[in-house]
Amino acid sequence: MPAASSRRIVLASRPVGEPKPSDFRLESAPVPEPGEGQVLLQTRWLSLDPYMRGRMSAAKSYAQPVEIGEPMVGGTVSKVVASRHPDFAVGDIVLSQSGWQDHALSDGTGLRKLDPSLAPISTALGVLGMPGMTAYTGLLNIGQPKSGETVVVAAAAGPVGSLVGQIAKLKGCRAVGIAGGPDKCRYLVEELGFDAAIDHYAADMPDKLRAACPKGIDVYFENVGGAVWDAVFPLLNDFARVPVCGLVAHYNAKELPPGPDRLPLLMSAVLSRRLTLRGFIVRDFASQAQDFQREVSQWLREGKIKYREDVVEGLEKAPEAFIGLLKGKNFGKLLVRVAS
Amino acid sequence: MPAASSRRIVLASRPVGEPKPSDFRLESAPVPEPGEGQVLLQTRWLSLDPYMRGRMSAAKSYAQPVEIGEPMVGGTVSKVVASRHPDFAVGDIVLSQSGWQDHALSDGTGLRKLDPSLAPISTALGVLGMPGMTAYTGLLNIGQPKSGETVVVAAAAGPVGSLVGQIAKLKGCRAVGIAGGPDKCRYLVEELGFDAAIDHYAADMPDKLRAACPKGIDVYFENVGGAVWDAVFPLLNDFARVPVCGLVAHYNAKELPPGPDRLPLLMSAVLSRRLTLRGFIVRDFASQAQDFQREVSQWLREGKIKYREDVVEGLEKAPEAFIGLLKGKNFGKLLVRVAS
Repeated sequence: MPAASSRRIVLASRPVGEPKPSDFRLESAPVPEPGEGQVLLQTRWLSLDPYMRGRMSAAKSYAQPVEIGEPMVGGTVSKVVASRHPDFAVGDIVLSQSGWQDHALSDGTGLRKLDPSLAPISTALGVLGMPGMTAYTGLLNIGQPKSGETVVVAAAAGPVGSLVGQIAKLKGCRAVGIAGGPDKCRYLVEELGFDAAIDHYAADMPDKLRAACPKGIDVYFENVGGAVWDAVFPLLNDFARVPVCGLVAHYNAKELPPGPDRLPLLMSAVLSRRLTLRGFIVRDFASQAQDFQREVSQWLREGKIKYREDVVEGLEKAPEAFIGLLKGKNFGKLLVRVAS
Repeated sequence: MPAASSRRIVLASRPVGEPKPSDFRLESAPVPEPGEGQVLLQTRWLSLDPYMRGRMSAAKSYAQPVEIGEPMVGGTVSKVVASRHPDFAVGDIVLSQSGWQDHALSDGTGLRKLDPSLAPISTALGVLGMPGMTAYTGLLNIGQPKSGETVVVAAAAGPVGSLVGQIAKLKGCRAVGIAGGPDKCRYLVEELGFDAAIDHYAADMPDKLRAACPKGIDVYFENVGGAVWDAVFPLLNDFARVPVCGLVAHYNAKELPPGPDRLPLLMSAVLSRRLTLRGFIVRDFASQAQDFQREVSQWLREGKIKYREDVVEGLEKAPEAFIGLLKGKNFGKLLVRVAS
């Protein structure tokens, strides 16, 4: 009897600029067998996140690049379907880093068991997972929002940005979101309680942002860069804090934009306005994981925080969905349902 | 009998680029008479500092610009020569903000009495004054140097930079200075105990800096910008901290440099290397003045800290000396002896 087949999506080539479908390749292989001390995981949910664009490039970063021919990395919610590990039983649901594939082996390192009775298991990849903790730790540690201040976040309808704005509101701030298109903007104000939302496709986006921030900007949670940064920069108040979390507008850039060179302008503003710019990734605040889980779970139970998921059906759709993510086509946390 | 005459140097015009002697004007007027509750101060020492270039421009900054026709601002050590204020007696020596002039009236606000038996009174403008406190607070609060780390400072033979490097040594760091010319570099290593000093006029300055920082740079205390920043930037380690204190290489710039635009490159590095850039001025840490005075005074008494002054004789020399300061011509804290 032939072994059952397992699919995976590997990096076929390193993208130049925007990733293309041909930068990915779908492969099949027999489902692997767990060795002693291992579990076999079947992927239920795969998370797609902008950081993955960085892993496709060979450039030095905070993480190793994916090698050509290797499966794309990614967080998953997976089910234990075979176990030779004393701590895991068949049927357990775990948070894993199985990547873009149907199955993966694990020796248990880094797995976290999920309790499906506490929250939908997919939230472990979103509001209660890495994106949520990114929003929570970056905003509170670096942004340090104070009541009455103005907090601006871009990619505001995404899983990070939507939580940044909602926490800002819980802290007594004015929350202003920038998002792509009227549907997302309406969602931010009507569903999530943002004070204002600006469509970043609007030709007069900088003017609209200025009007939405009559007292300037005290915290700008940077997810985007590019034209959004250019609109935010003149509005930053003295002592503004800028957690730099992502720069999705730059990820596909092939070369630096033409001049003039605005680096001296930025440094002069850092000095004269006493700005703080600080880059971070969620791992830098790993010690705050329990605080995050406790506090955000409670906000969720109390209905103070909402979240939205954008679900794509089938592993084979992951490349197209990921390419769309980099263009802001998703509306909510982008998830691939790999198996039900 | 005609009143005695008092000189002052006023801003004659706002410089375009590098200040010229004609941007200043020496005026004379009768020595003013103190009213009830006022003291008449005679300037002994005038401090010349790079921040004054900013006050000559009309651009918004953390301080009001000097108006055309008004005396240039500046810290002074002054002597009370007439008093109608209960807290000050003739002969008292005070730290003041009298500006570029022989005499000034004060109602006592902001004056601090100095005890000439504790330290030379000129140190209140240097190592025990604003430049010293700038070094101390910026390095310790923002730089947060840890034993074994590498701290780089530019304008290292100046009053701020020389204290930054010496405090870095006291904290167990490797201290690397960048300064203009072999005399200053020798002074940094042989007199102040820096581990290395790089001549910023050397054609291979970036290579020399790299060689002097074999483990990269953890703290860069930014006083300069321009070519020094360009040499430092590739060497900044993950989690490096950059207190942005001054950008003397930019102060005379008339326009932005040609492209490419390196702003996205900087932001990408802030993210991928988790850098912290934070601008500050000494006033932001005003609450730490007593800690600074106590700790640095003690280091001075114990011989753990040295300082150097560059004295110009006569108020009329202030414009030329200030223009030279912006070119790095001074060697040590630049002071004008206005009266003995």
